[in-house]
Amino acid sequence: MTAPRALALTMGEPAGIGAETALGAWRARNARGVPAFVYLGSAEHLRAVAAGLGLAAPIAVVSRIAEGARMFPHALPVLPVPLAAPVRPGEPDPRNARATIEAIDLAVELARRGEAAGVVTNPIAKVVLYAAGFRHPGHTEYLAALCGAGDAPVMMLVSERLRVVPVTIHLALRDAVRSLDSAAIVHCGRVAAAALARDFGVARPRIAVAALNPHAGESGHLGREEIEIVAPAVRALRAEGVAVGDPAPADTLFHARARAGYDAVLCMYHDQALIPLKTLDFDGGVNVTLGLPILRTSPDHGTAFDIAGKGTARPDSLISALRLAGEMAAARGAPAFG
Amino acid sequence: MTAPRALALTMGEPAGIGAETALGAWRARNARGVPAFVYLGSAEHLRAVAAGLGLAAPIAVVSRIAEGARMFPHALPVLPVPLAAPVRPGEPDPRNARATIEAIDLAVELARRGEAAGVVTNPIAKVVLYAAGFRHPGHTEYLAALCGAGDAPVMMLVSERLRVVPVTIHLALRDAVRSLDSAAIVHCGRVAAAALARDFGVARPRIAVAALNPHAGESGHLGREEIEIVAPAVRALRAEGVAVGDPAPADTLFHARARAGYDAVLCMYHDQALIPLKTLDFDGGVNVTLGLPILRTSPDHGTAFDIAGKGTARPDSLISALRLAGEMAAARGAPAFG
Repeated sequence: MTAPRALALTMGEPAGIGAETALGAWRARNARGVPAFVYLGSAEHLRAVAAGLGLAAPIAVVSRIAEGARMFPHALPVLPVPLAAPVRPGEPDPRNARATIEAIDLAVELARRGEAAGVVTNPIAKVVLYAAGFRHPGHTEYLAALCGAGDAPVMMLVSERLRVVPVTIHLALRDAVRSLDSAAIVHCGRVAAAALARDFGVARPRIAVAALNPHAGESGHLGREEIEIVAPAVRALRAEGVAVGDPAPADTLFHARARAGYDAVLCMYHDQALIPLKTLDFDGGVNVTLGLPILRTSPDHGTAFDIAGKGTARPDSLISALRLAGEMAAARGAPAFG
Repeated sequence: MTAPRALALTMGEPAGIGAETALGAWRARNARGVPAFVYLGSAEHLRAVAAGLGLAAPIAVVSRIAEGARMFPHALPVLPVPLAAPVRPGEPDPRNARATIEAIDLAVELARRGEAAGVVTNPIAKVVLYAAGFRHPGHTEYLAALCGAGDAPVMMLVSERLRVVPVTIHLALRDAVRSLDSAAIVHCGRVAAAALARDFGVARPRIAVAALNPHAGESGHLGREEIEIVAPAVRALRAEGVAVGDPAPADTLFHARARAGYDAVLCMYHDQALIPLKTLDFDGGVNVTLGLPILRTSPDHGTAFDIAGKGTARPDSLISALRLAGEMAAARGAPAFG
């Protein structure tokens, strides 16, 4: 018999909303179908947040994922990663940066060994980690480095209604326009198509492509990037057998009828992907990292220092991230949870 | 007693879908509350389109708007603007360019004289008009020239759920980023606030401002336009007494809760405005030209040559444009219709 598995949930920045949303997700496990997860972080901190916010939740310290998976129906299982300093909500302490990183390291290790079905990460605050010597450009890049992934990982944002893949991400719009290139579009399209087939149960993925310019550039009158960069990438993807649409005006792609025609949209810049996603579903978006050897999802909000510890943080996005990771693990044919 | 008024609806490009959507709008007059309008174009063409598509609609040739307003409940009133050449759907003929322009000229004249309550324009094909000697950059600029409007008109796109004002419009994204300037943002904010109060019945207009860069530039880490261009414009508008928000990440502005907090959003580029508008309501968007001495709305689609004459064109956007023009005329205190 295979040992039961669960998702590994990292604590993220402890001064953020990770602990309270984890408590919220565990409490909603039956009502909202949250798959088993084990929290990698401080049990003391989790207990203190639960007590402070009046969120009844028994906390169970475990030493293995399998033990946590069995425990999950009855208590929120914690695989301990001790903090070095007390947590003040909204006021990150660099002394806890080491533990924040250790939780990520442990989650990746457990997933690579196959004990964890996948990794769900709570948000971190990069500046805090930098102060403690962290040298990676971001959370995702760090995960890729831990996994020894050769190619750049690809971000997909997923909600109930829409999946989008931004080809450029955290760049000023000016730089996103300048840096757009065919190779990146091809890479994102290739990785997205493979992931849709393997992890999302889409037998024949159809990918739409948003043009960079308004009206898709109007045959070059409103910009030449469609002709020189996007269309060649589309042709290259088709040559690889990926079912991908012509560069289409972005404003025509996201209404309900249009959404019925594809499984994901390649977007050329951050807001082109995030505006429709968050317009349609502000709280339920999930960030999925494609192209890693492990499964990884995360909520699409940040540390939310401004509301941390107040009990107003919504667990919706974390719940969506846990559920999606569970569905993706099942699509990969992983053993059942818990 | 004041003579009854109606909206003047221009025929637009006769080879496009203007005639069939006008017929559809008239036929929906009772079911969908379409205010009285008079079609400025060819009665013969309208009759031929109605016969060809099997759209029962009596056509009444009139010589004045007031006569058309009285006739509207019983027949689709037409103030004749004869065509020079037969119309083939989807195949524009430059010989009809003169009549297309004449209909616009006549509509503006009737609105300026106060006979028409406002102007609703069907889409034109600029390339066809250029071939006939038209020298204006676009439909809106031509209307502004006819009106002798001093300042640049401002485009607002309106649906049931959202009003957006793109500060830059038909530019490649690269050029939109380059050409963004504070004066244009201030002008758009000022004109939008005045129009919301006068034409939309909003006593104290609240205007949100979308940042250019993702995460609103993250304090300059993802672009400096928020600091150098957008925020100074916001301060200038506040100094004029306009209630305007700080530059906000565009992906946080368009979900239902966010929309409850403002009356319109200033957007920095075309797709930033059009993606959320068309994601939420693909068929019902209306283009409103602010800053003219006359009222002008238009559907937010083009000539649609690909479907012209096939009977599949939806009149929804034209109906929305007519209804909104009617509501705006009422808000201005114009006499009742018909």
